[in-house]
Amino acid sequence: MKNIVFCAMSLDGYIADKDGGVAFLDSVEHSPEVGDYGYKEIIGGIDALVMGRNTYDTVLGFDVDWPYGDKTVLVVTHRDIEIADDIQDRVSSFAGTPEEIISHLNAMGKENLYIDGGIIIQEFLNENLIDELIITVVPILIGEGIALFGPLNNDLKLITESSKQFENGIVQLKYKVAK
Amino acid sequence: MKNIVFCAMSLDGYIADKDGGVAFLDSVEHSPEVGDYGYKEIIGGIDALVMGRNTYDTVLGFDVDWPYGDKTVLVVTHRDIEIADDIQDRVSSFAGTPEEIISHLNAMGKENLYIDGGIIIQEFLNENLIDELIITVVPILIGEGIALFGPLNNDLKLITESSKQFENGIVQLKYKVAK
Repeated sequence: MKNIVFCAMSLDGYIADKDGGVAFLDSVEHSPEVGDYGYKEIIGGIDALVMGRNTYDTVLGFDVDWPYGDKTVLVVTHRDIEIADDIQDRVSSFAGTPEEIISHLNAMGKENLYIDGGIIIQEFLNENLIDELIITVVPILIGEGIALFGPLNNDLKLITESSKQFENGIVQLKYKVAK
Repeated sequence: MKNIVFCAMSLDGYIADKDGGVAFLDSVEHSPEVGDYGYKEIIGGIDALVMGRNTYDTVLGFDVDWPYGDKTVLVVTHRDIEIADDIQDRVSSFAGTPEEIISHLNAMGKENLYIDGGIIIQEFLNENLIDELIITVVPILIGEGIALFGPLNNDLKLITESSKQFENGIVQLKYKVAK
């Protein structure tokens, strides 16, 4: 079982602008040759996604179909959320600590988790509950926004697995978190 | 003429801890095989260094000889600084905007500049006066400290020149700033 973060950030560390928008992702061309930066492979290897309320709302705002197929999705929030009829069998909300989230999903047989959204990622990192970080660095500085990383009680040493430069200037960095 | 930033940062974007210390740099082994990450080549190609007062004080605090040889060094500060007798021919202080700093050094025949120190780098970036960014990413998250990047009036698009992974896990990213 492992918990993975897979996300895009600007070189200055933001995963979205201050309004939650991700227009900075389109500052480079995403051609078919570049592909999906390994996204489908990652999604194929996990059992469930954990995301914050803001990420869920952002995804619902995209003008596309529900992008997570049959995967179990847990939306971490204390508030009520609206879940469309056709995804109610796989999407649910939950309020709890990272450890409680993991226990809840493990009890459902979901062991390999994709952790998404700035606040949730930061909470999991601060408890040293992330195993792999795959960061797609977009060659732009945006100056402000929603940061990928936040304060930590302790330094987290990382083990570099690989770095890969794409022809559009994106560099993907893969790390394991030292335990 | 060009202005270069060459610095090490933690993956979460810090060039020093909150006390100005750089112990995080030693979270990886710097073996002779790894070399100096291109530092001497960069220093060899520039005419002068521009650094903030904090960086100057940090360098003076290192238990080593003055590390910049004969290079012209401009310390950007409004306060008086102490300059040792043996480096007074090449080190001076100056107070001014990035454009004034550049004009001042250009008038001395210094055209290729190494810009160092968080605040100074941020001021130059915010005026779009940096041409190249060479960032040595250390595989560690430290959670807080002195950030390399700061707020910007405008997004800065970057052009990825190269990425290189060293055997100790450091990844060096080289960018040009789009003008």
